[in-house]
Amino acid sequence: MTPPLITLTTDFGDESPYVAAMKGALLWVNPAARLVDLTHAIPPQDVRYASYFLAAALPYFPPQTLHVVVVDPGVGSERAILYAEVAGQRVLAPDNGCLTALFTECGPPTNLRRVRASRYFRPEVSATFHGRDIFAPVAGHLSLGLDPAKLGPSVGDWVRLETPAPEITKDGICGEVAFVDHFGNLISNIPAEMVRDKPRCVRIGRRVIRQFAWVRTYAEARPGELALLVSSDGKMELAIAQGNAARRLRARPGTPFILNFKSLV
Amino acid sequence: MTPPLITLTTDFGDESPYVAAMKGALLWVNPAARLVDLTHAIPPQDVRYASYFLAAALPYFPPQTLHVVVVDPGVGSERAILYAEVAGQRVLAPDNGCLTALFTECGPPTNLRRVRASRYFRPEVSATFHGRDIFAPVAGHLSLGLDPAKLGPSVGDWVRLETPAPEITKDGICGEVAFVDHFGNLISNIPAEMVRDKPRCVRIGRRVIRQFAWVRTYAEARPGELALLVSSDGKMELAIAQGNAARRLRARPGTPFILNFKSLV
Amino acid sequence: MTPPLITLTTDFGDESPYVAAMKGALLWVNPAARLVDLTHAIPPQDVRYASYFLAAALPYFPPQTLHVVVVDPGVGSERAILYAEVAGQRVLAPDNGCLTALFTECGPPTNLRRVRASRYFRPEVSATFHGRDIFAPVAGHLSLGLDPAKLGPSVGDWVRLETPAPEITKDGICGEVAFVDHFGNLISNIPAEMVRDKPRCVRIGRRVIRQFAWVRTYAEARPGELALLVSSDGKMELAIAQGNAARRLRARPGTPFILNFKSLV
Repeated sequence: MTPPLITLTTDFGDESPYVAAMKGALLWVNPAARLVDLTHAIPPQDVRYASYFLAAALPYFPPQTLHVVVVDPGVGSERAILYAEVAGQRVLAPDNGCLTALFTECGPPTNLRRVRASRYFRPEVSATFHGRDIFAPVAGHLSLGLDPAKLGPSVGDWVRLETPAPEITKDGICGEVAFVDHFGNLISNIPAEMVRDKPRCVRIGRRVIRQFAWVRTYAEARPGELALLVSSDGKMELAIAQGNAARRLRARPGTPFILNFKSLV
Repeated sequence: MTPPLITLTTDFGDESPYVAAMKGALLWVNPAARLVDLTHAIPPQDVRYASYFLAAALPYFPPQTLHVVVVDPGVGSERAILYAEVAGQRVLAPDNGCLTALFTECGPPTNLRRVRASRYFRPEVSATFHGRDIFAPVAGHLSLGLDPAKLGPSVGDWVRLETPAPEITKDGICGEVAFVDHFGNLISNIPAEMVRDKPRCVRIGRRVIRQFAWVRTYAEARPGELALLVSSDGKMELAIAQGNAARRLRARPGTPFILNFKSLV
Repeated sequence: MTPPLITLTTDFGDESPYVAAMKGALLWVNPAARLVDLTHAIPPQDVRYASYFLAAALPYFPPQTLHVVVVDPGVGSERAILYAEVAGQRVLAPDNGCLTALFTECGPPTNLRRVRASRYFRPEVSATFHGRDIFAPVAGHLSLGLDPAKLGPSVGDWVRLETPAPEITKDGICGEVAFVDHFGNLISNIPAEMVRDKPRCVRIGRRVIRQFAWVRTYAEARPGELALLVSSDGKMELAIAQGNAARRLRARPGTPFILNFKSLV
């Protein structure tokens, strides 16, 4: 039988001993667990980034994968730790909104529980490092077959981030930059289905872009040219072929991303 | 049977082919070894950082884990390569002080040996990359069950870093910043047990901080507020809730970290 | 039986959900696959860096390892995806030159094929993310034992990068910086076999260096001293012991790296 898969997503930073300590504490409980690093480079305490990240990554994993998420600015406070099942997979995460996009896109969670059973924690739980002292050992026990019902009571609700939906206006569609990837590509929150024709112009923040390519792939644009295309998660994306659009346009998550279909006078 | 766990800690950088070559050379000897990356982002040649890192991470791993550490500015010189057992685990590291904190906190090493048996090395050993040519294959052989006694002679001593202990003065406790984590939190070398009451002020380098919260968790402080608390490894820590204390106070490892309990005139 | 080893090399960046999605899509096909991260920090779209990286890392892996390489500025264009076998190992990579150094140093590829059989792809293939939609599932199927002949037709040729060879001149040897590592060491394209004696001077770009140590290891040079030595991959290397030569000399890949054996007037 293949040992269970456990993925790790944190904002601890690659150079930090916190990632290592967490891996150790998990393997202490189940030395056979197979760990898969998703990232440890979520920007510090950036719950919104984590939410985007998880929705873009987790749905691709096989059923029963256990995903451990520690982006947890409220560590040690009364914020809950959640166990949830969604689309056949399992998640352990702080209840701070980081699961908003995942739950929105992959359907409501089932078997949602508040993790409370301290007998599955490390014997001493620090006030500031629940990744090592709670998340890791609980994940280890789950990977050994622990019934999630033993973790704590069912809960009916969870914390949601406000996520602005794109609006249709008389001139076009008003969205925002949802994510800036490593290449500087601007991924908006505007679903590709909302857009049939090439817009007259794209506005990123205060910048009005009238000259851009309307393409299917980066390779169809000339190097350095601004290009509007559909992202790999089905949203409208503005990129520069072999360049960095975020840097050139000074855009970041939250920057308005507007498509105009009427000519501006 | 679960294949053996081998962790990797280096200063090679994530973008470097050296990490990959080292993994290859290890898996060449034992393709069944399970590799766990701890970090490859130790600051270049920073033996002191490595020492802190290892003591903060290794104790959490299960017994018999083999930890391979390559932070090795003396590569190719007469510095020894050590094999050691400590607290039920196994370590392979250059004898340059990087094990100082681990051996201090987890008890003296046993079965300490100088690695010399070149029949467990790669056939050609370069002068500058012992990670690939010595550490990796030796780790592979150990994971296959090689008796460590075959690696080389027992040794009785090892290189130690000087590690300044905090001093009690008439006004308070004089320590230093031992570690700055990814969030900019300042972890001192002052054990929490030395501190019973809230200090009157904290001094970080030349900065005197009179206004700060005395908290158990980050979440108890207001965003942006300086907070004194106990770190996850039991030391006094100065943090900014949702901010970066190291950047605001221009502190780094070695910066004085002083707690004053008497009022300063 | 040990589950198959699959290594991953991309330019997606550690903070990106693309790495995670690709791992998920691979494990979806073969949940037992053992993934080994080589790097996700290849500079964006830097095919030349990838080529150097792969030749420096892949040869150390055990036979039959499957290496998946996604540094793919031409994603979605007509560029081919290649399957190849070389020196007992297997590679899946875009046909953009990233295999140039590997194929040059490890002998010509065998069983070279153009990957076309879309029944091994994800059901929906995006235009911009073939790492997730093609490379990952194809690697999963290969790791389950798929005959590579089923992937697509044999091809006889592949894209090569131009790689300038070092030239022997009347004064010495003219090469270039092939790689700058994490420590700032400058690795040239000049094989160590070409150099018997200490050069009179080294030129890096326009800088002429007359004072340098001629050493076997970094430790033989004084801290801060420029040192000429043989790199761990057998090329001439210029380093600064405990310092960063690339930063001091403002050198990068492509900068001339010239060894002069006659005295300059």
